[in-house]
Amino acid sequence: MKAIILFGHGARDNRWREPFDRLASLWRAQHADTPVELAFLEMMQPSLEEAVTSLVSGGATQITIVPVFFGQGGHLRNDFPLLLDACREKFPRVNLSATPAVGEDLSVLQAIVDFGARSL
Amino acid sequence: MKAIILFGHGARDNRWREPFDRLASLWRAQHADTPVELAFLEMMQPSLEEAVTSLVSGGATQITIVPVFFGQGGHLRNDFPLLLDACREKFPRVNLSATPAVGEDLSVLQAIVDFGARSL
Repeated sequence: MKAIILFGHGARDNRWREPFDRLASLWRAQHADTPVELAFLEMMQPSLEEAVTSLVSGGATQITIVPVFFGQGGHLRNDFPLLLDACREKFPRVNLSATPAVGEDLSVLQAIVDFGARSL
Repeated sequence: MKAIILFGHGARDNRWREPFDRLASLWRAQHADTPVELAFLEMMQPSLEEAVTSLVSGGATQITIVPVFFGQGGHLRNDFPLLLDACREKFPRVNLSATPAVGEDLSVLQAIVDFGARSL
C-alpha cells in the first residue's frame, strides 16, 4: 500500500503547524486511499521515523516523502538524507522515496505568484 | 506606483534561495508593471528595509509584502512586525502592507497536495 509523508521543518510556536494540519486534511479529503502523516525535522512531533513507523504499522509498503520546504539548504541537503537513511535501515522492506522540495515545483511557485497578485 | 516584496527566511546555503529567484522571475514575466524585490529575515541579503529602500528609490508608493513562509510562528508573529514598523517609520509616506503567509492560502496548499499526488 502506498502512503505519503508531508515533512516540514517544525517550530517552537504550535500555531506554526496549522498549514500542515490543513495540508493533511486536504490530502485525506482528496486521496482517502493513500494514508498521510505529517513529520517534522525539529521542535515538533512526530519525527520522520515515527511517521514511517506509524504508516508501516498501518500496512504501508511504499512511502513517498514530500519535503514541504521552499529552498533546499542544509536541512534538506544534509540532515534529511541522514534521517531517510536511518528509516531505510530500520525498514529495509519498505520502499521509501523522497521528492524534491515543494518549492522546486512550478505549480507551487505559480500559486504563490497568483496569491501575491491577488493581494496587491 | 505599486510594488511587491517576496519575504523569505534566508539560509546559510546560497542554493536555498533558488526558488525565491525563480519566484521573482515569474513575477517579472507576468507582472512587469509592478516591480518586485526579494527580502530575507536573516542570513541572506537584502533585508526588508533594504528592499523597501530600493523600491521607494524606484518610485514605489504602495508596497505589499508577501511572507513566503508556510507557518506563522515566532518569525512572522514577533520578528516581522518589528521590521515592518521600522520600515514604516523610515518611510512614513509609503503605504506598506503585509499579507498573511503564503501557507495560509488554499491555492498554495492545493498546489502542494497536487504535487504530492503526482509524485506517488
